[in-house]
Amino acid sequence: MKFASLRELAASCRDLPAGDAGAAAAVATRDATLTKPAGSLGRLEEAVGWLARWQGLNPPRLDRVDVLVFAGNHGVTAQGVSAYPAAVTAQMVANFAAGGAAINQLARIAGARLRVLPLSLDRPTADFTTASAMTEQEFLAAVGTGADAVSPEADLVCLGEMGIGNTTAAAALVAALFGGGGERWAGRGTGVDDAGLARKRAVIDRALERHAGSLADPLVCAAAFGGRELAAIFGATLAARRQRIPVLLDGFVCTAAAAPLAKLHPGALDHVMAGHVSAEAGHRVLLAELGLRPLLDLDMRLGEGSGAAVAVLLVRAALACHLGMATFAQAGVAEKSPD
Amino acid sequence: MKFASLRELAASCRDLPAGDAGAAAAVATRDATLTKPAGSLGRLEEAVGWLARWQGLNPPRLDRVDVLVFAGNHGVTAQGVSAYPAAVTAQMVANFAAGGAAINQLARIAGARLRVLPLSLDRPTADFTTASAMTEQEFLAAVGTGADAVSPEADLVCLGEMGIGNTTAAAALVAALFGGGGERWAGRGTGVDDAGLARKRAVIDRALERHAGSLADPLVCAAAFGGRELAAIFGATLAARRQRIPVLLDGFVCTAAAAPLAKLHPGALDHVMAGHVSAEAGHRVLLAELGLRPLLDLDMRLGEGSGAAVAVLLVRAALACHLGMATFAQAGVAEKSPD
Repeated sequence: MKFASLRELAASCRDLPAGDAGAAAAVATRDATLTKPAGSLGRLEEAVGWLARWQGLNPPRLDRVDVLVFAGNHGVTAQGVSAYPAAVTAQMVANFAAGGAAINQLARIAGARLRVLPLSLDRPTADFTTASAMTEQEFLAAVGTGADAVSPEADLVCLGEMGIGNTTAAAALVAALFGGGGERWAGRGTGVDDAGLARKRAVIDRALERHAGSLADPLVCAAAFGGRELAAIFGATLAARRQRIPVLLDGFVCTAAAAPLAKLHPGALDHVMAGHVSAEAGHRVLLAELGLRPLLDLDMRLGEGSGAAVAVLLVRAALACHLGMATFAQAGVAEKSPD
Repeated sequence: MKFASLRELAASCRDLPAGDAGAAAAVATRDATLTKPAGSLGRLEEAVGWLARWQGLNPPRLDRVDVLVFAGNHGVTAQGVSAYPAAVTAQMVANFAAGGAAINQLARIAGARLRVLPLSLDRPTADFTTASAMTEQEFLAAVGTGADAVSPEADLVCLGEMGIGNTTAAAALVAALFGGGGERWAGRGTGVDDAGLARKRAVIDRALERHAGSLADPLVCAAAFGGRELAAIFGATLAARRQRIPVLLDGFVCTAAAAPLAKLHPGALDHVMAGHVSAEAGHRVLLAELGLRPLLDLDMRLGEGSGAAVAVLLVRAALACHLGMATFAQAGVAEKSPD
C-alpha cells in the first residue's frame, strides 16, 4: 500500500469494512449446542466469535498465524530516557534472526510464523523534543511498509515492536491523543530508575509543549512522536482491517501505535483484541481509553509481540473447543432444566 | 495412600516437604542472563521458578503433564440447587470418555494426559442439610483415591472436577472454613436463576447451622459438606506435595477442595498455583483468602479442569522461553546501563 499524503491515509482509515455478523452468529448458534453451560468458556467463546466475524468464516481457522515485529530507532534516546543503549535495537534484531529472543520461542510454541522488519535502524528518527520525529514522507513510507507486511493469507496477525526509547515515543503519542502528560503516561520501560523516569516525564512534557500547535490531527501526532516501528504497526493494523484479518495487539507501544486509528474513526479497532495488558505503567489506562479488554494480565513488559504471541495460545485453545466438542445431542447429555 | 483416621490424615498434612530453593535459585540465575530486561516476562518467569522449586530440577521439565478429573454426585441436589439434573454427572463422564467435552480438547492442546475418575456416582453423598455428606470412612476412601491418582512420573498435575451440585458443596465448605454464609460464597454454578440462587444461599446457611458444632476441624468440614470429588482433589493435592510435584488448581470447587490443607498447615499449598480465577462468584474471594494469584482471568466457569489446562499453555510458554532464549553474552547484546 502506498499513501501519497496524510489526507489520503486519513480517508483510507475512515472507509473500513464491517465484520461478518452472519459468521459470528453461526458460531454462536453452534456454541449454544456444545456440552457445557452456556457462556461457561467465557472469553474463549468471545475469541472464536471474533475470529469468525473478521475472517468472515464459519468455522474460523488458524492455519496461518503471523507475528510481525517492527524495529526502529529513536532520536529521543539522546535525552537519556532508556536503561539500554540505542545499539541494542539492532543487536536484538540480530538476536531475532538467530532465534535467541523470547519471541522466537513464543512464536514457535504458538505455531506462528515470525517475521522481523527493521526500519532504517541506521537512521534514527529526529529527537521529538526539538522537531517532528518524522517528515510526512518518512511517516507514510513506514506506514506503507507495515501495511505491506500483512499477508492476505494470514488468518490472524500479531503485532509487536523493538526499539530502544520507544516507550517514551508511545507515551508522548498517547498523551497527545488522550490528554495528560508524562505523569500519566510514562513508565519505566526496560527499567529506568527514579531519575530516569523523572527525565522521561519531563521529556514528554517538553515535547507536548514543543508540538502544542499540531496535536489536533492524530496522524500528525503519530508522525511527530512515534517512531517508524509505531507507524508500521499503524499501517499493519489498518491493512489487516481492510483485508478483514483479525489482529492481536501486544503491549503499550503496540497499542499506542494503533491508537490514532481509533481517534480517526470510532470502531476502526473492532477487528483488534488486546493480547495482554503489560506492566508498563500507561498500558492499562490506554486500553481503558480504547475500550479494549486484554486477554492476559501476566506482568509482562517485554514487547517483541511477546504478549500477543502468548495470547495466540488462548485463541487456539478456544478454537479447539469450538471445533472439537460434542453437542448435547451427540453426547446424550441432558440440557439445562427450564428456569 | 491409605489413611485409617482423620487424625492420621491430619498428621500427614502437617508433615510436608519444603521446595528446593537451590533449583529455584539456579533458574533465577540463568534467567538474569537471558536477552530481556530483568523481570520482563513477569509471571512466566515466576512459573519457571515454581516448577524448579517443586520438581527439584534445574532446568525444570514438562515431559509429562497429567489432568486428573474427579467426578461425584451430591445428595444436596434434592434441594434444587442446580440448573441441571444430577444424571448429567454420569453423562458428562461418558462424554469425557468419548472425547467430546471441553477438557478433552484443552488437554490435547496442552499436551496433557487426561484421566477421569468417577467416584461411586450411583451412590450420591448424603444431603448435608440433614447429615454429614460422608462418613469418616467414605471421606478417607475418597481422599485415598485422589492421592493414588497422582503418578510419581508426573512433572505437573492439573486438578479438576465434575459433579452436579458441587458448587453448593464447595460454597458450604469454604463458608465453614473462612466464615460468611450463602450470601458470601454462593454463585450461579452452571446457571441457576435468581430463585435458584436464593435457594442455594438458604441451603448453605441451613447446613452451616446444622453442622455448627463441628466447624472447627477442617477435615470434619470437608467430610460434612464436600463430595467425594472434592475429597479426592484434597488427597491429590496432598499426595502431590508429598512427592514434590507442582499442582495447577482449576476453579472454585477445585480450590475449595484444596482449602482445608491451608487451614491445617500454613504453606501447605505452596506447591500450588491457581490456573485461573473463575466467574463463579466465590472464587476470587477464596483465592484472596488463600493468597493465591490466578494466572488467567477469562470469565470461565466450566470446571472439568478446563482453566488449569489452559494455564498449562502459559507454563509451557514460560519454560520454552527459559530453555530456548540466548544469553546476553551468546547474542552479543549490550546489557542494561548502570543505574
